[in-house]
This record gives sequence, structure tokens and C-alpha cells, in this order.
Amino acid sequence: MKSPFSSPALLPLKIIATGVALPPNRVESVDLDRLLNKPEGYVEKRSGIIYRYHASDDASQAELAAAALHDALDRQGIDAASIDLLISASAISVQALPCTAVHILKVSQLAPGTPGFDINSSCVSFISALQVAAGLLNAGTYRRIAIVSADLASRGIDWDDEESSLIFGDGAACAIVERGDGTSGILASLVETHPQGSELCEIRAGGTRRNPRAGMTDRDFLFQMRGKQLFRQASALIEDYLARLLGASGLTLEQIATVVPHQASHLSLEHMRRRLNVSSSVLVDIYRYHGNQVAASIPTALHAAVISGRFNRAEPAMLIGTAAGLSLAGMVLLP
Amino acid sequence: MKSPFSSPALLPLKIIATGVALPPNRVESVDLDRLLNKPEGYVEKRSGIIYRYHASDDASQAELAAAALHDALDRQGIDAASIDLLISASAISVQALPCTAVHILKVSQLAPGTPGFDINSSCVSFISALQVAAGLLNAGTYRRIAIVSADLASRGIDWDDEESSLIFGDGAACAIVERGDGTSGILASLVETHPQGSELCEIRAGGTRRNPRAGMTDRDFLFQMRGKQLFRQASALIEDYLARLLGASGLTLEQIATVVPHQASHLSLEHMRRRLNVSSSVLVDIYRYHGNQVAASIPTALHAAVISGRFNRAEPAMLIGTAAGLSLAGMVLLP
Repeated sequence: MKSPFSSPALLPLKIIATGVALPPNRVESVDLDRLLNKPEGYVEKRSGIIYRYHASDDASQAELAAAALHDALDRQGIDAASIDLLISASAISVQALPCTAVHILKVSQLAPGTPGFDINSSCVSFISALQVAAGLLNAGTYRRIAIVSADLASRGIDWDDEESSLIFGDGAACAIVERGDGTSGILASLVETHPQGSELCEIRAGGTRRNPRAGMTDRDFLFQMRGKQLFRQASALIEDYLARLLGASGLTLEQIATVVPHQASHLSLEHMRRRLNVSSSVLVDIYRYHGNQVAASIPTALHAAVISGRFNRAEPAMLIGTAAGLSLAGMVLLP
Repeated sequence: MKSPFSSPALLPLKIIATGVALPPNRVESVDLDRLLNKPEGYVEKRSGIIYRYHASDDASQAELAAAALHDALDRQGIDAASIDLLISASAISVQALPCTAVHILKVSQLAPGTPGFDINSSCVSFISALQVAAGLLNAGTYRRIAIVSADLASRGIDWDDEESSLIFGDGAACAIVERGDGTSGILASLVETHPQGSELCEIRAGGTRRNPRAGMTDRDFLFQMRGKQLFRQASALIEDYLARLLGASGLTLEQIATVVPHQASHLSLEHMRRRLNVSSSVLVDIYRYHGNQVAASIPTALHAAVISGRFNRAEPAMLIGTAAGLSLAGMVLLP
């Protein structure tokens, strides 16, 4: 059945399964109150989070990613051998070389030889990966692609920085996609990068910039954020950006049944609700029980929308987020 | 004019420009003889390299990438503002967060807001990026994409490891691609990943695996290779792989006018010449004057083929390489 929202510009894409994984250790905000010598209730009030999950310092990002991949396969009874490409869409890598997809493939049950590569656009990597997957599937290069986002933000938390240390949670999520029959797909997608904000949100180590040869300190391995400036830059851009994304989709905001946003912070979700006028019943908000899971946030929220029936064939949905970079990324989908 | 090698399965893609950049410091093999206390001629004989380029320890990977991007734009008189997507296809990142494309955009003259993301499949990232670009261009998501690979391998050379320390050079290369008119494109592309070899060639630091919280040493930042095992694994796979790639293209090796291989090592190029029976006149070999430039090797060799007229409309060309992972990647193109 053709959706009334269908358009000749629809790029076929069908999400056939989603799945998630969380590390075992749940960190309540009251636990952080004690850890940080704050009065009870302080961290929850400040962060808007009741609990988030933090992996142990020796836990494997690749294994968490593989757990989300196999959760997606298992939920829909999909044969692992039918996946013909794995895209790792995380913000932080397992290591500098080789790419993260290799590490995930190594601990997964996909067929020997299954190709994999990484896509990275920081917190919105999943949206870039969906764009890329749609292109590859419509070109016939691949037929069934698994996209996995897994981030262990806890590995880079700066406990001396109150603002950023309270908001992050670890996690992984997966979506498996096919071309489908052409009734589902992408009505519009739009990514814009504004690199003048690259230093507002960063981890400076990990590559050619900071290392033993070029010079580094332990602090270079920790997440650094200038939250107010970042929020100001993102706020100045997002209203016009949203209008361009909706314009490209041919829809109005009222026609979007479900908005799956990056779960950046309490403030960013509140901003979306109020200033962009996205109603609470439309917005998928899992922040209170996950925190900001970096690149895993959008697909984890998508999974929550799928299993609660909020991402369904009848109505258009939007993925949207801002990311370290600064990048703005969004996509309007017919599920 | 339609090529006699055209096929209904041709995926349209046109490389409209290529460019390169090298750091200023040329390192002769005789310089390394002195540095490593070897007799004159030792390093050249051992590595097969006359000279390679090494950036200074404070040089910027992003600036080298931007130089290659602007070289490609300038050579063909392409307006920087016409690029609507930048793909960074390097093996090693600038830093853990945000992605490398952001850093390149920041020092480039592309239009404000131009989106960028990273694709990483280690040394064959450029082939994955071409696959992805073809999908995105044919889906109409973007119209003109710049792919840039830039690696500063010198930042991770382990001078105590003779085998790997002699072979690496720094560099960057760019290809600008469009959908084209459908007479140029991809006849076949094939990527296979065999992750059991992931530890044969790696830099362990840089992500969630080794860092101050999970534990690390300075050595984790250096390139580690078990060359013999790696070569054995790659050799066991590549003949069948090449047959599958050619089979998918519908061509025989004799019909490929130009083979642009990853410049992994003297031995790997020799192996391709002899065991795979690729003649010297067909193989693009820039190794003696560049060394192994990691992900920048394939597009740098492609640029050499373009400017020497060896990558031309009349005849099919092949890109091929093995990469840390272990990944095998190849593509048969009608230029």
C-alpha cells in the first residue's frame, strides 16, 4: 500500500530490524551524588538523568556492538549469513588502526569475508550511515546492510568537569536495512557541517594531532566541551536548518508523527520541544534512562520507537541531531 | 561514445579531477642508512625505496589533506563551492572526536555548511569511499563529491622495528567524482574482510581499547606489523579474490589496461607482478618515490595514472589492495 506521504523523490530504504545492547553496570544519579560529594538529588536535577550505564574500564566496545547486532538479528529471526555489509557508525574508534568494523566482525557471527568499514560524523554517524546505506542498496552494491553504533563515553569522562561528566551513558544499537519494495524510504536527508565549532566539543588525542611523538597529556584523552558556546552555535543554526530539511521533504512538522532526536542533553531536548515546537507526544525521549550515548543515541532511540510502535508504516518519522563538528544532520523517513 | 567494455551492470561514476600533496621533507634512503647506522645502500635494498616524504612532528594532517583537495580543484578549474560533500578516507584520524572531515573542512575553502564525514577501511579506505560515493551520486543525494585520503604514517613509525620503519611515507591525495553521463563507471567492486588477521597490522592506542583509563604504553601508539604472517594470509586469499573480482566485472585480466594497486611494499608489488601475472607495463608502481602512504597510496597512484594518461576513457582500469583488517578491496572501472 502506498503511503499518502509518498513522493517521486522517495529513495527506497526499509529498516527491517533494530536491536540494542547495554553494559551491565547501571549508574544511578544518586550513586554519582555520593561519588562527587553532592547532596542527594543534585545529579538528577542537574543532568535530568535517573540512571545511565557505564561499562567497566576493560569492557570491549566491539563486543557491545556485536551484542546489539545480534539482538537485531535475533528479534527478527534474520540469518547472520544474509548480512552482506557491516557499517560501524560510532563516534570513537576501538583503536587507531584497523577500523572498528574489523573488531566488531571479529567478535560477531557474520559470514567469513563479510566486508566492513567505518563511517564517522561524530554523534550523527548513524544518520550518515543510513544515507550511505540507501545509496549502496539502490545501486545494487549490497542487499542487506547492518549498521551498528557503539560508544563507551565513560572511557573519556572528565570527572573534574561537572557539566559533561554527568550526562554520558554507554551503549550500542543496530539497524538492519534493505532496499525494500519502494514504499518505504527517505523523503529527504540533509547534513551540514560548520567546522568553526570543532573545538567546542572534542577529544584531542587518538590520532595524528596528539600522541607521544607530537606531544600529549592524559587530559587530551578526555572529553572536553564548552557547553554554552556549543549550545549557542547550534541554536543559532537549527531553526533554519529544520526549515530546509522539512522543505526538502515536502512535509510540514505537523505531518511528522515521530521525531527521533539525538539525546544530547536535557537542555537540547527541552529546546526541541519548546523552541522548535515539537510536541512531547511526538518526540522520542529516552534520555532519563540512558543519558547521552554519543553515536549510539539516535539508533537506541529509534529502537525504542520501533518496539513501542511509534515508528510504523502509516506515518512519516524524522531523525535529527547536532554533533561535535559542529554538524547538523536529519532525515525524514517513510517507515 | 559507449565503450566496448560497457555493460548493463555499469554503475555510473566519473572521476573529474585528482590531486596530491606531499610534506616538504624528503627522506632519502641514504639518510636512513645514516640514522640507523647501516652501510650505504642498505635501506634502499631492504625497502625498495629511493625516497619518501615525512612530515615534521607538528605538521597538520588536515592541512595536507586540504592541499590535495585544492590541488585537484585547481588542476581542473573546479569551483570549490560546487563540492557538496567531503569524504575523508584516511586510515588514521586527526583525533578521536570530532571526525577528520571536520578538521579538513576547517582549513579548506569549501562553502560554509558543506557536509563531511569519514570512511575508514584502513589502507583501502579510498576504494570503500568510491563505492559509497557512487551510491550517493546515483541516488541523487549529492552531485559532486570530493574524496580525500591523507595519512601521516611517520607519526607512528616504530624505529626499533626495522621491517616496518623503512617502508612508510606521508602524503595525501584527492579525487573529485560525479555521476557523469553513464559512459564511465564501476563495472564491479568487491570488498572482503577477514578479521582473524586484525592483530597482524595495527596501532592499538587511539580509541577505547588503550588509553589512560583502560591502560596504555607509548608503544601502543606505534605501528606494529607481523609482516610474514600478514603476507602469508593475504597471499592465501588474493588469487581467488582476484578471480571473483574479475568474474563480477565480466572481464579478463588481459582486458585491464591499468592496475592501480595499494603500494603496500616492494614484496607485495612484486607478488602482484609475478604470481598474479600483472605485467609491469600495466601496474602503476610509485613505491620507489613514495613508499607505503597508507590510505593515500591508492589515490596517489591513481593520480599518477591520470596525469600520465594511463587512466583514460578507452580502457578498463582496476584499483586493488589489501589492508590492515585484513581487508581485500578492488574495483574495476571504466574511466
